[in-house]
Order: sequence, then structure tokens, then C-alpha cells
Amino acid sequence: MTSQIDDLAARTRAFIDAHVIPVEDEFDGDVAAAGGERLRIDLQRKARAEGVFAPHAPREYGGHGLAMRERAAVFEAAGRSLFGPMALNLNAPDEGNLHLLDQVASGAQRERYLAPLARGEQRSAFAMTEPPPGAGSDPNALRTLARRDGDGWLVNGRKKFITGADGAGFLIVMARTSGEPDSPGGATMFLVPAGHPGIRVLRHVNTMDKSMLGGHCEIELADVRVGPEDVLGAVDEGFHYAQVRLGPARLTHVMRWLGAAQRAHETAVRYVSERSGFGRPLAQHGMVEHMIADNEIDLAATRSLLLTACEALDAGRAGREETSLAKVFGAEALHRVADRAVQLCGGAGVSADLPTARIAREIRPFRIYDGPSEVHRMSLARRAVRRYGVPGERAQREP
Amino acid sequence: MTSQIDDLAARTRAFIDAHVIPVEDEFDGDVAAAGGERLRIDLQRKARAEGVFAPHAPREYGGHGLAMRERAAVFEAAGRSLFGPMALNLNAPDEGNLHLLDQVASGAQRERYLAPLARGEQRSAFAMTEPPPGAGSDPNALRTLARRDGDGWLVNGRKKFITGADGAGFLIVMARTSGEPDSPGGATMFLVPAGHPGIRVLRHVNTMDKSMLGGHCEIELADVRVGPEDVLGAVDEGFHYAQVRLGPARLTHVMRWLGAAQRAHETAVRYVSERSGFGRPLAQHGMVEHMIADNEIDLAATRSLLLTACEALDAGRAGREETSLAKVFGAEALHRVADRAVQLCGGAGVSADLPTARIAREIRPFRIYDGPSEVHRMSLARRAVRRYGVPGERAQREP
Amino acid sequence: MTSQIDDLAARTRAFIDAHVIPVEDEFDGDVAAAGGERLRIDLQRKARAEGVFAPHAPREYGGHGLAMRERAAVFEAAGRSLFGPMALNLNAPDEGNLHLLDQVASGAQRERYLAPLARGEQRSAFAMTEPPPGAGSDPNALRTLARRDGDGWLVNGRKKFITGADGAGFLIVMARTSGEPDSPGGATMFLVPAGHPGIRVLRHVNTMDKSMLGGHCEIELADVRVGPEDVLGAVDEGFHYAQVRLGPARLTHVMRWLGAAQRAHETAVRYVSERSGFGRPLAQHGMVEHMIADNEIDLAATRSLLLTACEALDAGRAGREETSLAKVFGAEALHRVADRAVQLCGGAGVSADLPTARIAREIRPFRIYDGPSEVHRMSLARRAVRRYGVPGERAQREP
Amino acid sequence: MTSQIDDLAARTRAFIDAHVIPVEDEFDGDVAAAGGERLRIDLQRKARAEGVFAPHAPREYGGHGLAMRERAAVFEAAGRSLFGPMALNLNAPDEGNLHLLDQVASGAQRERYLAPLARGEQRSAFAMTEPPPGAGSDPNALRTLARRDGDGWLVNGRKKFITGADGAGFLIVMARTSGEPDSPGGATMFLVPAGHPGIRVLRHVNTMDKSMLGGHCEIELADVRVGPEDVLGAVDEGFHYAQVRLGPARLTHVMRWLGAAQRAHETAVRYVSERSGFGRPLAQHGMVEHMIADNEIDLAATRSLLLTACEALDAGRAGREETSLAKVFGAEALHRVADRAVQLCGGAGVSADLPTARIAREIRPFRIYDGPSEVHRMSLARRAVRRYGVPGERAQREP
Repeated sequence: MTSQIDDLAARTRAFIDAHVIPVEDEFDGDVAAAGGERLRIDLQRKARAEGVFAPHAPREYGGHGLAMRERAAVFEAAGRSLFGPMALNLNAPDEGNLHLLDQVASGAQRERYLAPLARGEQRSAFAMTEPPPGAGSDPNALRTLARRDGDGWLVNGRKKFITGADGAGFLIVMARTSGEPDSPGGATMFLVPAGHPGIRVLRHVNTMDKSMLGGHCEIELADVRVGPEDVLGAVDEGFHYAQVRLGPARLTHVMRWLGAAQRAHETAVRYVSERSGFGRPLAQHGMVEHMIADNEIDLAATRSLLLTACEALDAGRAGREETSLAKVFGAEALHRVADRAVQLCGGAGVSADLPTARIAREIRPFRIYDGPSEVHRMSLARRAVRRYGVPGERAQREP
Repeated sequence: MTSQIDDLAARTRAFIDAHVIPVEDEFDGDVAAAGGERLRIDLQRKARAEGVFAPHAPREYGGHGLAMRERAAVFEAAGRSLFGPMALNLNAPDEGNLHLLDQVASGAQRERYLAPLARGEQRSAFAMTEPPPGAGSDPNALRTLARRDGDGWLVNGRKKFITGADGAGFLIVMARTSGEPDSPGGATMFLVPAGHPGIRVLRHVNTMDKSMLGGHCEIELADVRVGPEDVLGAVDEGFHYAQVRLGPARLTHVMRWLGAAQRAHETAVRYVSERSGFGRPLAQHGMVEHMIADNEIDLAATRSLLLTACEALDAGRAGREETSLAKVFGAEALHRVADRAVQLCGGAGVSADLPTARIAREIRPFRIYDGPSEVHRMSLARRAVRRYGVPGERAQREP
Repeated sequence: MTSQIDDLAARTRAFIDAHVIPVEDEFDGDVAAAGGERLRIDLQRKARAEGVFAPHAPREYGGHGLAMRERAAVFEAAGRSLFGPMALNLNAPDEGNLHLLDQVASGAQRERYLAPLARGEQRSAFAMTEPPPGAGSDPNALRTLARRDGDGWLVNGRKKFITGADGAGFLIVMARTSGEPDSPGGATMFLVPAGHPGIRVLRHVNTMDKSMLGGHCEIELADVRVGPEDVLGAVDEGFHYAQVRLGPARLTHVMRWLGAAQRAHETAVRYVSERSGFGRPLAQHGMVEHMIADNEIDLAATRSLLLTACEALDAGRAGREETSLAKVFGAEALHRVADRAVQLCGGAGVSADLPTARIAREIRPFRIYDGPSEVHRMSLARRAVRRYGVPGERAQREP
Repeated sequence: MTSQIDDLAARTRAFIDAHVIPVEDEFDGDVAAAGGERLRIDLQRKARAEGVFAPHAPREYGGHGLAMRERAAVFEAAGRSLFGPMALNLNAPDEGNLHLLDQVASGAQRERYLAPLARGEQRSAFAMTEPPPGAGSDPNALRTLARRDGDGWLVNGRKKFITGADGAGFLIVMARTSGEPDSPGGATMFLVPAGHPGIRVLRHVNTMDKSMLGGHCEIELADVRVGPEDVLGAVDEGFHYAQVRLGPARLTHVMRWLGAAQRAHETAVRYVSERSGFGRPLAQHGMVEHMIADNEIDLAATRSLLLTACEALDAGRAGREETSLAKVFGAEALHRVADRAVQLCGGAGVSADLPTARIAREIRPFRIYDGPSEVHRMSLARRAVRRYGVPGERAQREP
């Protein structure tokens, strides 16, 4: 089995090198400039032809059905290009949505939403985050409201940073069905087709990253009508499902960015091995060696924490601690790697002549997306206090 | 005198707030998109009208003639907008070139080059850096060659990262007039009008920063003929003049970026004072306070080191150590400030809705431009070894 | 005047090198092992003979009466030896107590306490900190109680980490005279001779630092009777006086540790200039140069922030922000310097054969003593929020 | 099998808590003060009685015969006390020497040296490091000379930092049998009983760590006669065997220090959960949570890298890269953990009232012992250059 995975990873890497990196390089990682949806369809067609499409999707829908640990090397290979995850249909938020639907969706929902998503026939979005003072780092702040209306609901609210929303086939919308903002409980997930009346993409938020197809959108929900068949899972269980989705989604993010950071690192090592300064190859200067070694350390530690977390999930555990550890360390370490790669390449490093600056630009927001480092640290600290603090204090606060 | 400087700084800040920041914000700091040369002329006209133009230029050319220490607060106020230094004619490389010409140029050269530069009638470029394996961090690698031809020279070579070259009125070109590449000595500076035969801007290097008018260009010099009247200062003294130029130029870079980082910091503090999460204003969360305090520390330490170096230069010392200290600390600290500001503002921080991401993007290359951190550290270390090492070792190596 | 200060600093350094460092080295910085009180008396006698005694003390008591900025270089020279500040009578807490008494004491108190303290005839202690849950980082937690008793008070409580208490001639005791623990206001300072009934040194807290004469003591105050003539300044003004004392005391701490860190740095640079490895002098390895340069940067930035704060105090300002900046940066930077010096010297660095490990050991607690870094950061952040936050939030919290 | 390991780890921890930590606490981790050899014999007797003795030693000699991955949790449990590894006979250098002898020793040597070492009947030392300019970070500098003398050798030289030498039953002495200093090749290991004529312990180097029985000694070898039966393995293969020894020895160091750092962390979390400041439990302050979370991250990442390296060794690979990664990251991360634990506990943290300061003191040298971080980084960087650099450069330098 390991050799099958190794083979798939190797073929994935070859596919990325041959078909995806040239396009990324030409357009400096700007997916819209590179063709947007047309590019996606074209690259996914090629990926299917090469047998590397959708390594994570269930086999019944044409995927390879890999477990979390098996995905790690394959997703990393895909992530070497900023467009790689899109090409293999394993990009956020589709990959996380697919996982969520696979866990929770009804038979009819699987047919209508999961199957075409897995096959790359449509994209999706996950509409949870809201503009302040709504749900962000603190999901309890959820303000989008689903009011009972007959046997269904009318959903009203505003969402922000909804990745891929422009052009998505459907959205998973998180709305409050009970309780008050700033109190827990009471969220429900709804499946809403993109053209549904009342949904409007207001704008693409102009973020520093440029590689996500469909942008990070601001969305208005105005009297969006949903019926009981549109509820994903059970009413009022949305926060629970969000966790089901987020654990693996965080790890696959780490896998993809690991690939990008690894490529930045290799680019930099190659660069300093080809050039000289002050009488020696750059690669033989101690300060250069220091940066190379720190990159090796950060990459190895990220990989180790990632695999540890994958094993927890594959063993059926929730693994919230392990995923937080891998996410917070990975988001910070991989940006350090990309930043050092920029520095190692000097002037070329900050230009589009090399992929380093672009990779640094794309990774930077990962310290904020999917839970900022500060929130993960708060959560890790509180677990530690419950575990090692004096008993009387242990029960006090749960993030 | 101090109150005059304070007043000029205050008026500069008011001018930047009123006239410059709105344009920067609208175009996300992309100077070409914002109008390029037209924008420069328009903003400089307004700056003259407000009496804040060219605080550093000699009074005889319409400037305020400020000493280094006096410039610090004014340049910082200008740097609050990425377009501010351009608006006040104190941007790199013009400001450094003006200083160099003021120190070295002949009477005729002052008239022809310095005067219109000081008045903002033309821009300039400083053509020293070359593509590998030419002059970069290690200036001794200089490969552009000025071959004797009659009473003048024929200059051949290629330059890279020549800021502002596209559209500049003239270039200061560094070329080897004696010695071999990778040996010191033997460089001469030539003043060359932009339209001179043989000079060709090959391309703008597509760097991550977007606010420098005229870009960072790659330039070809093919049989460019220069005469004895085009020599700036004396033949073979180019490396010495480069130091004359670089010391203050590094400090004014720090001043400008200090303004930008300060603005990013203020933006972030305001942001976290307006929003809440987990039951409290963000500004009252300890991890947020930690980042705010670290910004305050980095800004204050940069300012202190900067002023210490300014005093050394104003006292007539070369101040190589002080300028290196301020440059290397400032370049790293100010990027940390901008990066923390991004983090404090969360999703908004990585978007063009706030100036934080753009400021981080623009400051990042400063760790590489004007001597990478690694080269400044090497130089600082060698001085320390000469000062504190055992006598036998002290003379061994000079950076 | 500057040349007088330079001369005093040079003579101070010569005195430290000749008379103090040999004793410190012999006893690895353990002041008790080196003779304790006897050593103090002996070294102070020599310092008087050399004319370098008490640079900060008022001239009327035999000192040099230096202002804060003038002290910087002299205290740094003294701090090069861990026993230097004691030898020159400028050690904590005596130096801070002298400053406080000079600001606040009555004529009789000056005669009885200040004069002999300035002349080194007795030592003193400052008894503010208490064991948890009493006053520590948060002074409002003050629990030692001064209950009215006739025209005087009976003081009861327990103090901890009272530096120099064992063997001190008198203590300045902070006790609550109004208000409740965890509320501000209501503290009063009392001058109490060491032998006073009811005062008992319970133990020396066994801290990692070993160079402070009289240790860091735990003290019991049991019905200690004080009269109106023992009140330092006014009743209920203790917290205010604590600030009067702490601002300069923090800066002189930075000065002293700056000297120690500078010595560790010089030791390390000399070490790596004398030894080779992997075919080159250690001093020419890039990673070594990196550490040396970072030390130079940390030392220079500490010095710059320190002098900036000194100027604020000399100008008569409270300078709370400037002293916090210098203290928090200095405490962290100087320990980094000492730690890098240890690393640069390898095995010798962690041994008593060199002063590096001992200096690192002594500096480490400075991140905690005199306000932990976290409390200074909290205070700096809150000032920034008041300055840059939205107006409605500005008034909210004062540290 | 896993449950057997878990059980052994749990029993080990219980033994450490009950029998070892009380002694360590009483004597602040100073093994000589706590009884030295007598303490070792006493604790090892108790460990045998509890069935937790020598988890790593071959079963034939009374150990548990654990593989590397199996050792991790058990050694970590032992490392919770600074005296724990000694109590279980798994301390450096004995544990590494046992491993080396088990791999290389002849039958007679096993009987004479390995068996009593495994059973705790005698201790051992590994005499490789020399005072400058001899073997240190760069083993090629080896200067101790074994000159042919009949069928044996006469060994002359000086060794430094020889852990445990004072009181050891035998030494493994590394000496040059061919080649010149600063050239590779030509080292041989000799087994020498402690009382052998010509061997003299000159002094204990007074290092900052105090918990290693027998100290870190300086040793003189004057005409020490060894015969062919004293050669460990083959002549001139010493550098190779040093690698055989060092890989696992580095990992077991990480395991032991992981236990100590984990204990410091738990101590600190408990401390901040019991105390309050500024109106809230310390554990609920964001800056405190930040430090706790960073400790969790550093501990988890160290554990992950450690287990990855253990698996490489258990799989029969040399694992030089994996052990370097685990060692360099672990040495730095675990000291950060201990340092944060000190900071979290404030004044108590720098005192012997808690184990934090003592653990920080003991871990610090690990960044230097067993190869300084800089040498491991150099080695990691060179591997990366060989792997990712341009082919022409790959072969250039081997650490």
C-alpha cells in the first residue's frame, strides 16, 4: 500500500511539474489572470487523464479514497504549485466540503451535491465567516439568522471571506436557528444552490493571495428561502459539524502549503548553489547555511506534527489538539520557510522571476485563515490548564 | 529650531493625510495604476503649494536644507503614505542621488543635474547593481566595463534592480575603470542622460513592491559613450562615493519605512480597539496586547538607533557602524511591525481594505535592498572582531 | 563635562578590571562565598581611594552627583563585574533607595538614613513584594497592613524577595494604610531600622543569581511599631513614591546589566578569534558572525533606548513609557547577548572558566525582577490603545 | 506490546515521583551534594526492586531490551527528575557506551565491561573531546596520540568535558592511530580501566549543570599502555564507531530532557492556575496562555521529530539527518520550554522553591553538548545542498 501511495505521489509531482507549474509561473500565481474557471476545467481534464485526479474523494465518485495519512505526501506534491490543488480537485473549500458531505449528507444530498463536487463538475463554498461583529475567530458571534417560515426557514445575513463563492455551484451556509449571538449552540448548516434567489456576491475582497479560484467574497443573504431537505445533518448541530469539517480541512491546508514551502526552499537552495559572493559559493556561507538548515528543521517538524495528527484522525479520534498543533506550527513555520527562501534569493527572491515571493504572499494569510494562531494558542493553553492545572480550576473555561 | 522642525513635520503629516493617502488607498499602493509620472507631478505641485516640498534639498534649490537628525521626523511623516516620499521629492533613489551630487558634483554638473533634480523637474536612477555574477551584495564583483576611448570611455554592461530607471532624466552609472571583477578598487561613476545612445531599459523586474515610480529595471549599456565631463568626482573613486551616498541613503530609507510601519501599527491598534471577540474588546486580550507592545518596542528601538546614527553623520563622522545598525535592525523590526499589524487585523489585515498588507509587502524587500541583512551582519561582526578579538587576528579581514 | 564623565567611566573601568573582576572570577560571582559584607567594605574602601565611589550620590555626601544620562557610561563600566556595583555603592536596592530618600525624605530622615547610605556605612532594603497572593507584579494586591495604634502604626505582614535584607541597616517597608487588597490607593512607606522588634529574616530565597549581597529574603513583620517620624513622605502616597523610585531604578538596572552583557560579548568575541574549527578561525564562520552581529545590535539598541529614557528623566518628565521600553527591551536583549556569548564559547562557555555562564545566570531574573516583561508589555499596550484606539475605548483601563 | 511499554512508562513515572524527585528537590539537583555514588547505588537498588531498572539494556543482562521507539516514553518518564536517568542506569554516557559495546565489543570485552555496566555495577566514561585546539565540534582535530609500542600502544594526550570520568570503572578513549590532526581517518577506540597507570583526573570543570554524577572532567593520559585486547572493534575505525554511538545517544538525550522540560511545563501551568493577578487567575491572561501554548507546541514538535528519528534507527537506517533534526530542534525547543516555565512562575520560577530554574540550567548546555546547534545546522544545510543544489556543486563538501 505504501508503494502505491509513493507511486501516486510521484505521478502527482510529475503532473504538477509538467502541466501546472508552467502556468503558475507565467501568471505569477494569479488564477484569474491565468484563465480562472477555464484553467480549472482544462487542468482537471488533464489530471483525470493522468490518473491523479481527486486522491481524497471516495472511490465511488472516481477518487482514490485515501486516508488522511496517505493523503499527506500526495497533497504535498500537489501543493508544489499554487494551482496544483485546483488541478487535482483537492483545493479548499471543496475538499473540506466533500469530506463534510461524505460524513453528514443524506442520500439525496449526496447525489445532488457530493457526486458532482467529487467529479469536479461544480465548485462549492462554505459560508460561515461574517463581517464584524459577526462570526469570525469566535464562531459564537454568528449573526446570520434563519427564521422559521412554514416548514422551512428564511435566511438573512452577510458573509465575508467566503472562498470560491463567485462561480460556486452551491454554498453551505451556516445560520443561527436558536440562541443569541455571543452564546454557543443553535447553528444549522444549509445547502443552497448558487443561483438561489436572495444570494448575492457583493464583491471579491482584495486579499494579498491571488491563487484561489472564485476569490474570497463578501455575500449578502436576503430572505433566502430554504426547506427541510436543505438542512445538512440535523438542526442546531452546525457548530458540531463545523468541527467535523475543520479538523481534516486544517491538516489538508498544511499538506498543500507544505508543498509550496518545500518548493520555495528547493528553489532557494538551488539558487545559492549556483551563485557566488565574497569569494565563495553562496551556499558555503554560514549565514546561508543557517537559513537552509532552519528551513529543513521547520519543514521536518511540520511534517512530523502533520503525520501525528493524521494518525489521530485515521484512528477515529477527533484529534482537536493534534490538528491545532499541526495547524498553528505549520502556518507559522511554513511562512518562515518561504520568507527565508525569499531572503536567500536576494533581489530575485522578491521578484516574479522566482516563485519565492509569490509563495510567501500566498502562505501568509494561513496564520489567519482557519482560525488565527492566537485562537489556536488559546485553545491549546486551556487544554493544558485543564490537564495540569489544580483541579478546582480545571473546569473553568472551555474554548 | 526644534519647534520649526516639529511644525514642518506636522504640516507634512497633514499634507499626507489630506492629499496622498486617499490616492494610495484607492490604488492599493500601485503607483503605476495610480497615474505614475502624472501623479508625481500633481502631488509635487500640491506639496510645493503647501510649503512641505523637499525638506532635505539645499535651500538654494528650494528645499528646507534639513540636517539628518532634523529629517527624521519629517521623513517619517512623509513615509506614512507609500506615495508620500514621491510627493515630497524625497524618494529613493532621487534623495540619495541629490545628496551624492551635492557632495561631489562639479559646478556644471550641479547646474545640469542637481538643480532640476532638487526641484522635481526630473527624476534620476543609480545604476550600480548587476545581474549575477555581477555587483550585488558584493560590490567588488562589478562587471560593467568602461573602456578608454579617446578622451572618454565606452561603457558596456548590464544593470538590474535599477530603481526608477524607466522615465528617469539621468542615470548615475557605476563602471569598472581599472582592476578585475572580484577585486576592489577601480570603479568610476558617470552621469548619463536617459536618452543617451546605447542605454536601453529591457524590462521592469516584477517585484512584490509596487510603489516605486519607474520600477526596478533591468538595463543594457551597449557602447555608451561618456566624456571626461561626465565623470562624477574622480576616476576610480566610485566605491568611495558609493559609501558617501549609502550611509545617509540607508537612514532615510529607515525614516520613510518607519512612517509606513507606524501607520500600519496605528491602523491595527484602532482596529482592535473597535472590535470584540470572546466576550471582550480585542484590545484587551493579552496576546493582542503582546503584539501591540512588541510593535511599540520595535518602533521605539528603530527610532533610537536611527537618531543615534543621524547624530553621527551630522557630526561629520562616516558612521558606517551606526548606519549599519540602524539599517539592519530597522529593516527587520519594521517588517515585524507590519506583519503583526496584519495579524492583529485578521482577515481585513490581509486585504486591501486596510493598508497593513500593502505596507508589509512594500517593506519586505528592505531586508535585501541597500545591502541584505546578512552583509550588514558580516560587516558588524568583523568590526567587533577587530575591536575585541586578539590582536594577531584583528587585521585579518576587512569587509 | 562629557570629557569628565568619559574620564570617570575610564577610571571606573580600570578600577573594576584591577580590583573587582579578579575576585568575581575566583568565586564564580558568588558574593557570599567571596566574603560578603567584608568584601563590600574592602572594595568600597578601595573605590573611595581611587575616586570612583558613588558616582550617583549627591556631592554633599561624597558622591559625584551625576545626572541619569551621565550615569549611563559609568554604571555600565561598573556593571562589567557582577561585584562592581556593590564596590561603587551603586547596587540595587541601595541606589534606588538613595534616590527615593533624596526626593522624599525629611531633614531628620536624610541625616539618619540617607547620609550613611550614601557613604556606604550601611546598606538598605526595599520591602514591597509579598508572597502570593500579596503584592507582586500587581502592587494593588498589597496585604501587609499598618493598623493605627496611638499616633503610630502596628505593621503586620510578610515580604518576599527583599533584596539585601539580611544585613541591611534599615528597610523601607510598604504597607497598606487604607483601602482593601486588590484595590489601588492607600499604601504608605515606613522607614524601619533593621533591628526593630518584630522584624525577622525568615530565610534567603535560593535564587539562581548569587551576586547580590544580603540575598533575596523572606521577611516577617509581626506587630512592628512605627511612629509618625518613620513615615517616608506622606501617608497613603506609597504607590506614588514607588513610581518615583522605580523609573530611575529600572534604568540603572539596565546600565549595570549592560556592562555585564558587554563583558560577556567581548569575552566571546575574543574566544572565537583565538580558536579554529573546520579549517578556519571560528570568528570567520558565518553562523558565528551572525551571533556576534546580533549581540552588537542588541547592545546598541539597548544603549539607545536607555539614553533616550535617561534624557526624559533628566528633563524632569516621569518617562514611564521610555523606562518601560528600555527595561523590557534591555532585560530580554541583554539575556540574549549573554546566551549567545555562552553558545559562542562552547563547552568553556557553560563553565566557570569564563564569565559567560555566570553572567547569563545573573541577568536571567531581570526579565522578572522590577516588573516582569509581561506587565511592562501590558502597560505599553494600554498606552498605545489610549493613544491610537477609537476615542470611546481610550479611557477604559489604566494599568 | 504497546500496553507493556505504557505500563513500564507508568511504573517508571511512579517510581520517579516517589523515590527520586524528593531527593532532587531537596538538593536542588546537585548530585554531589545529594550523595553522589552512594545515592546512585541506593536509587538503583530501589529501581531494581520496582522492576524499572535499565529499560534499554539487553535482557541477558537484566534489562528490558527496548527498541528506540519503545524507549521514548520510558526515558521521558525517567527524565522528569534530573536524577532519574542515573537511578535507572540510563544516564549519559553509560547508556551510549552500553549501546556501543553491544554493537562492537568482543566476547571478552562484553564480559568484562558490558555486563557490569548494564547491571549498574560500575560506571563508564567516553573520552573523545579535548581542550582546544583538539577534538571538539570538529572531531578531525583529534590530538591524543596512540603510538605503536610492541604489540600495543602508548597513549598520550589530554581530554576535557569527560562526563562521569571521576569514579568511572573504565573509559573508552579515542586516540589517533594514523593520519594528522585536522585530517579525517585514523582514530581508534581503546577500553581502559579507570585505575590504569598514566590516567589522571585533573579536575572537574565547573559547569553550570550539577546533576551528572562524576562531573565533566579534564583528564591527562601520560604513556597509558594498552594492548591489542583493549581495542574496541577495529583499529582506525574510531570515527565510524563514534557515529554508531552518537546517533542513538543524541536521541536518548532528547528523551531525557523532554521529561525534564515537560515537568517544568507542568509545574508552571499548575503555578499559574493557582494564582491571580490584575483581577483574574494568571492562567487566564493571554500572555500567559501564549507561553503555555508555545510550550505545548515545542514539546509536541520535539516528540514528533524524536519518534520519527527513532523509527529510522529501529528500521536499521543510520538516520543521521533525522537524529540531527531531533537533536538541534529538541535542544533549542526544550530550553525555550524551561525558560518560559521560569518566566511563568515569576520570582518563584528563578528560585529553588520550584524545579524550573534548575531544569533550565541543566538543559542549557545541551545546545552545545553532543554537537553544538551550529554544527548540526551546517551538516543539515550541506545535505540539503547536495539534494537540491545544482549537480556540479553537490559533491563539493562533506561535513
